[in-house]
Amino acid sequence: MNIKDDSINLHRMLKGKIEIQNRVPIENIFAKENSLINLIYTPGVAYVASAIAENKELAYDFTSKWNNVAIICDGTRVLGLGNIGPYAALPVMEGKSVLFKLLGGINAVPVCIETQNKEEIIKFVKYIQPLFGAINIEDIESPKVLEIVERLKKEISIPVFHDDQHGTAIITLAALINSLKLVRKQLEKIKILILGAGSAGYGINKILNSAGCKNTIVVDSRGAIYEGRKDLINNQFKYEIASTSNPTKIEGSIGSVIEGCDVFIGVSAKGNILSNKEISTMNVDPIVFALSNPYPEILPQAALDGGAKIVATGRSDFPNQVNNAVIFPSVIRSLLDLRVRLLDENLMVNVAYAIANLVQTEHLKTDYIIPQINDQRILPVVTQTLKSVIQKTVTHNYEKETNEKAEI
Amino acid sequence: MNIKDDSINLHRMLKGKIEIQNRVPIENIFAKENSLINLIYTPGVAYVASAIAENKELAYDFTSKWNNVAIICDGTRVLGLGNIGPYAALPVMEGKSVLFKLLGGINAVPVCIETQNKEEIIKFVKYIQPLFGAINIEDIESPKVLEIVERLKKEISIPVFHDDQHGTAIITLAALINSLKLVRKQLEKIKILILGAGSAGYGINKILNSAGCKNTIVVDSRGAIYEGRKDLINNQFKYEIASTSNPTKIEGSIGSVIEGCDVFIGVSAKGNILSNKEISTMNVDPIVFALSNPYPEILPQAALDGGAKIVATGRSDFPNQVNNAVIFPSVIRSLLDLRVRLLDENLMVNVAYAIANLVQTEHLKTDYIIPQINDQRILPVVTQTLKSVIQKTVTHNYEKETNEKAEI
Repeated sequence: MNIKDDSINLHRMLKGKIEIQNRVPIENIFAKENSLINLIYTPGVAYVASAIAENKELAYDFTSKWNNVAIICDGTRVLGLGNIGPYAALPVMEGKSVLFKLLGGINAVPVCIETQNKEEIIKFVKYIQPLFGAINIEDIESPKVLEIVERLKKEISIPVFHDDQHGTAIITLAALINSLKLVRKQLEKIKILILGAGSAGYGINKILNSAGCKNTIVVDSRGAIYEGRKDLINNQFKYEIASTSNPTKIEGSIGSVIEGCDVFIGVSAKGNILSNKEISTMNVDPIVFALSNPYPEILPQAALDGGAKIVATGRSDFPNQVNNAVIFPSVIRSLLDLRVRLLDENLMVNVAYAIANLVQTEHLKTDYIIPQINDQRILPVVTQTLKSVIQKTVTHNYEKETNEKAEI
Repeated sequence: MNIKDDSINLHRMLKGKIEIQNRVPIENIFAKENSLINLIYTPGVAYVASAIAENKELAYDFTSKWNNVAIICDGTRVLGLGNIGPYAALPVMEGKSVLFKLLGGINAVPVCIETQNKEEIIKFVKYIQPLFGAINIEDIESPKVLEIVERLKKEISIPVFHDDQHGTAIITLAALINSLKLVRKQLEKIKILILGAGSAGYGINKILNSAGCKNTIVVDSRGAIYEGRKDLINNQFKYEIASTSNPTKIEGSIGSVIEGCDVFIGVSAKGNILSNKEISTMNVDPIVFALSNPYPEILPQAALDGGAKIVATGRSDFPNQVNNAVIFPSVIRSLLDLRVRLLDENLMVNVAYAIANLVQTEHLKTDYIIPQINDQRILPVVTQTLKSVIQKTVTHNYEKETNEKAEI
């Protein structure tokens, strides 16, 4: 199998990995009497349109909106290929669309856009809302994308999922929860090094904080991020990282910071930048997640040679695939079904625990820490988790409100 | 059959008339060895993306772009319902999408947008280009839409079809060509009244001029449009109508202008505004196309009572359905297949003649002047026509260039 030729040939043969199909019965659609075309098109559809004009919410009942997601990508950070533009991003986003359908039953339109301007992207997403039940942001460069996501969460009426940030954070936490069971360590007591301060690094630091971790250190191309580092002033997200990590204000590069860490999480988009020697300076039973694609920060064998107890990558050809594809179709399916507008950190932590718990303790091994991408149990468990957390929150708020009223 | 209840119930049951489906074989997609996911998603898709990054044109070969159309609608002029907004437009555009697939094999995404601002709509369409092979503009109010279409024709790299303008113009000319055969009149010698100066009226006047008609009169809500009418200064498209119609500068309202006309074409979006009495003042063998939907300017029986020789409407429940749905899937299918960037008046006139000729002389009757919406011969004949006209044009230009060079 020559993966390059095979892939090019398959794409040339398919001419598109997705297509639109009709859901209406087309038999006798143009019949002389009582033809269906009169119902799905003019004049019948006018009554449906009028009903929605009176109550916008009915768009969820009468059209495909409830099940449509827009994959928004400007082509600035596609895979490990960098800024290759929106046309080159098309086959990648069509691939995401295939997974959306296959694993979540979702209609995902790969909307690759011909602008890389932040404000224009935000406006574009606002304008495209009516057709969609949710927005999925993909492969847009950081920190621009983090600001886009923050703004959209406030300014649009449908949920915004940022795969590189939220998806990676959830699946990484899930993998970490199970890894810690194997090495008998507690999240609250360990030191975690995150290499990379883009969307993934930002999201992972945030979810680890929410999950109770007290000691994360994020390292970017200039070394450890710490409060007071001079260049942070220009990047609000690195500034936020600094104020929520590295409590002892450690400085220095990856080679020195890794010493004594319990966990290494690589989301740097740089392959082979870590050696087995550096792994050997970590704390006992090191956990190494080298998640960059297609080239991990360190290859699994090298990490094991350095003494790593558990190793994960983002790839499907090694054990323990920590890849957001395991999670994004199910999370977005659940957001759509439950009509959740805001996926907050609390929801994400709960989903991570639910995913982790799918691997029963008796099956847990150093090379089986998370379920596989096509595990059929993921979708129902994610939906159930979101549902119960939301109900709890609603009940909690209701009780709080009731108590407040009683106090008055 | 209660069309209102039946339509609402059908839409509630379907929850969307279209959906996205995968074109990839999903069996063994996650197999351990040689799994297809490695080809359609990372790492294999990276080679496809890189190839497109080097040559944007390959997006037509490796993705669904070649077969995708964006239906752009801002909800300002949906059916006869007016400005009901983009959410209410959704079921109508999904209906168009069904016809696109059924009659043209095209993936049409019903992109209803949450802005009604002209410049924002133009920018939006520019940004959404990468995924699509063509743009179809639908149900946007005039004259704003005419300017949008003019601008997009110049400023984007894929073809722009304006259904209300181009589609209606082609099918109306086709119907007129055959009607004139029946009454033995010539296009060059007759007087045609067009009621309505929106997208359809503008497009019909333009195509009739291109086809050789010398005497059209367009009437809007203020009466006949003529060169020098004071209010035209604010509307460049009505100004253009004035300078390409009404050679004798007739003034007055519909009731007086219709006198002596050979043809009445109603695209006014106003039902029942013409009486049989007014029809009776037309020239011998009057042709009456009352195309407004769902309520024609005059009902067929009333027109016949007034002496009309041939009557057409836009509706499927009367004979002679002159509706752009007869033509838009085939024309856009051909634009995609032939990679035609600009659908000019010459191409449109040729397509109209080809459609008209599908009704053979021996079958031509006053109640059968154009093929029906689901006539399987429309698509091949449209494609063949566009192909041969383009080849002729290319040859002509080549000869012209060669001659010019020879002269130098």
